[in-house]
Amino acid sequence: MLQSNIAHAAGPSAAAGTGSAHHVVIVGGGFGGLNAAKSLRRAMRRGDCRLTLIDRSNHTLFQPLLYQVATAALDDTTIAVPIRSVLAKSPAARTLMETVTGIDRAAGTVLIAGGPPVPYDTLILATGSVYSWFGHPHWAERAPALKSAADALALRDRLLRAFERAEAEPDPAERARLLTFVVIGAGPTGVELAGAIAELAHTTLARDFRTIDPSGSRIVLCDAGHKVLASFPDRLSAYAARRLAALGIELRLGAGVSDLDARGVILGAPEGEHRIEADCVFWAAGTEATKVADWLGVQGDRRGLVAVRPDCSLPGHPSIFVIGDASAMPGRDGKPLPGLGAVAKQQGQFVGGLIAARLAGRIGERRFRYTDWGQLAMIGGSSAVADFGWIRLTGTPAWLVWSAVHLMLLVSTRNRVVVYIQWVWAWLTYARGARIIVGQPGPDR
Amino acid sequence: MLQSNIAHAAGPSAAAGTGSAHHVVIVGGGFGGLNAAKSLRRAMRRGDCRLTLIDRSNHTLFQPLLYQVATAALDDTTIAVPIRSVLAKSPAARTLMETVTGIDRAAGTVLIAGGPPVPYDTLILATGSVYSWFGHPHWAERAPALKSAADALALRDRLLRAFERAEAEPDPAERARLLTFVVIGAGPTGVELAGAIAELAHTTLARDFRTIDPSGSRIVLCDAGHKVLASFPDRLSAYAARRLAALGIELRLGAGVSDLDARGVILGAPEGEHRIEADCVFWAAGTEATKVADWLGVQGDRRGLVAVRPDCSLPGHPSIFVIGDASAMPGRDGKPLPGLGAVAKQQGQFVGGLIAARLAGRIGERRFRYTDWGQLAMIGGSSAVADFGWIRLTGTPAWLVWSAVHLMLLVSTRNRVVVYIQWVWAWLTYARGARIIVGQPGPDR
Repeated sequence: MLQSNIAHAAGPSAAAGTGSAHHVVIVGGGFGGLNAAKSLRRAMRRGDCRLTLIDRSNHTLFQPLLYQVATAALDDTTIAVPIRSVLAKSPAARTLMETVTGIDRAAGTVLIAGGPPVPYDTLILATGSVYSWFGHPHWAERAPALKSAADALALRDRLLRAFERAEAEPDPAERARLLTFVVIGAGPTGVELAGAIAELAHTTLARDFRTIDPSGSRIVLCDAGHKVLASFPDRLSAYAARRLAALGIELRLGAGVSDLDARGVILGAPEGEHRIEADCVFWAAGTEATKVADWLGVQGDRRGLVAVRPDCSLPGHPSIFVIGDASAMPGRDGKPLPGLGAVAKQQGQFVGGLIAARLAGRIGERRFRYTDWGQLAMIGGSSAVADFGWIRLTGTPAWLVWSAVHLMLLVSTRNRVVVYIQWVWAWLTYARGARIIVGQPGPDR
Repeated sequence: MLQSNIAHAAGPSAAAGTGSAHHVVIVGGGFGGLNAAKSLRRAMRRGDCRLTLIDRSNHTLFQPLLYQVATAALDDTTIAVPIRSVLAKSPAARTLMETVTGIDRAAGTVLIAGGPPVPYDTLILATGSVYSWFGHPHWAERAPALKSAADALALRDRLLRAFERAEAEPDPAERARLLTFVVIGAGPTGVELAGAIAELAHTTLARDFRTIDPSGSRIVLCDAGHKVLASFPDRLSAYAARRLAALGIELRLGAGVSDLDARGVILGAPEGEHRIEADCVFWAAGTEATKVADWLGVQGDRRGLVAVRPDCSLPGHPSIFVIGDASAMPGRDGKPLPGLGAVAKQQGQFVGGLIAARLAGRIGERRFRYTDWGQLAMIGGSSAVADFGWIRLTGTPAWLVWSAVHLMLLVSTRNRVVVYIQWVWAWLTYARGARIIVGQPGPDR
């Protein structure tokens, strides 16, 4: 369609009305991209630059709470904020809901699916990570992961529908299969998801059915490694393992997935393969970077991450930055920085500040330094673990800290209020309000 | 699959454990069906009957607020309640998430898609209504209507995506087409939907875009009749028409749809046909009954409604009741009762009470009498109309009454609290929190 016309509307001179200003293009509206954009607000007000933020969805999503959407505790809209509304007050910032298909470094443009290339003066790539099924892309359908709002709603539908199907199922073996839930990967996401499924089955749904007893559901959490929450200190990992067992979750460590089929999962353990018949299998294992290395024509690491200089720029290209999960940077201890929202957020703020300083004429070498505030993981049943380095918490204190920190990190005040109320309500009543099946049944039903 | 096994699990002797008790089967978990079920609670406690409620979705939906989900003001889960949770405390009540395919009156069974027939002693059909596209079923895709949670989310996606597409569109004519919204049918649903779209475009989104100005969106509300809110007194209809015009809505009365195509709608008016180029066309016109007359092998009226006796039973079949939108019954003035939730609710309560009385041995002729509490319609911009017969309200007083009544009618306390907070929040900030595009783009994008 009319490429030249689009160029007129979408090109540098359009809309924001400051056509001559330095044009910063950000790809990705997650923790990294959005914080970079926010850090450029003052530079935009000064007229030093204008901004285009490109994301294929219209909202920024608070992924740490996505598992609560998948398990019917929260609505998707309470953990999402329209990107446009975040940037609404900066007239020099423009949001483009588009899918990026590549980068033309020679021309200095970002290629998008639905229009002409978008030229940039400075480019920030904050495209995050995607799940990887360890070289078995066809597993993705059988063991879906949790990355977008649509993923969470599909997972919720699947979870709730499993109980409905079991209620109508006459064959006890098939009923048991429908009530077996396997979560693959025992990092924070896997632990949180398994814990929330246990709460849903054992408490919320306990009295809702007549043929089945949801509290007898089998929930299996497996990992190829030998620890749950491997990034945490041993004492907290051991605590988490005990709490998961107390929630009725079957832990299978040292057990990686060797195959997945329509009726179950095969775990490869040292003592031999073990088959688990299960209808719902969820993936919370490895992630890899999005296609950013391909776009840039550079060699990513094993997981596709792009190595960057200490100022987050691409080596040899001081105007191209890669931040967050898509980039690889060693921390102070020499180990790579973890793929956490906190790293992406701080890198976004750092790069935004760096660009603003350059535009203001302050040119000097800067190095990104990650401030590690610690890590948190919810387990379920009002317990969590928190590791702040100087203090380590478990149980209810950790749970309270987890709740407070996650409320604080939500992007809008409205979301904070709504999530807080839904949490208090659920805590008082054990109910999960979002137990609604919206989608149509799948082909197997 | 194993029909005989399913019969064992799903048949009369299963689950509820009161196999010999009178079996009431309710089809449909809306206002009618759910209130009938609630009115049978005491009879179930006494052991007089057991109950199976069949619905193809797992939740009951408060349809009067569905337009607020479609226009990003509320989450779908805040106006829905899982049917199971409503009936959780009655062990003799069982919920079946199934699609009904017919009724075998000779055998006394309800036929379902995913299992063996469900036998009944008494049957209540409360299947409601569906939209009808006046003999043009293919219009449904082009001008979708609002009946389920999935409908509302699809409509919300379509609405929000129209603004995104317009923002990226270089051709001014196409941009104008994308920003033209046509609502067909000026009854309460059409008026409420048009008013909410106007609020969304003119207020909420006003500052979010750079290329387009959403406040310049064109919103057209058309109807073949010559009044908006035709069921209201003339004075209130005229008030509503003035308020709609003040909200910037273009009213086209006496203008029925004569055709719909991929790029717009053709209105047939006395002065000749008129074409409106529009991307988003929404249907809020006629409804008809579900297939209940076919199931029963009786002749429905013009809109498929089943004529019932004064006690809501099918003539000649005292154990089969048809209530709510699926049934036709004259009111005290001889005119047919309107298709309102209030009628369905009262009929459900009446029939539940009638069955309980029969089971308790009290047999006597009873007649359903509809208590008309009046009617309400929201217009938008903090104004509404309310007609209680003895008093008629407009403007802010009507709006306050509308809000209070709708909060009161919501099915769960949790939903009341969450909706109330979202309304207050929206009223204070003009924001609509649920502006999230979840689905994948359609084939035209």
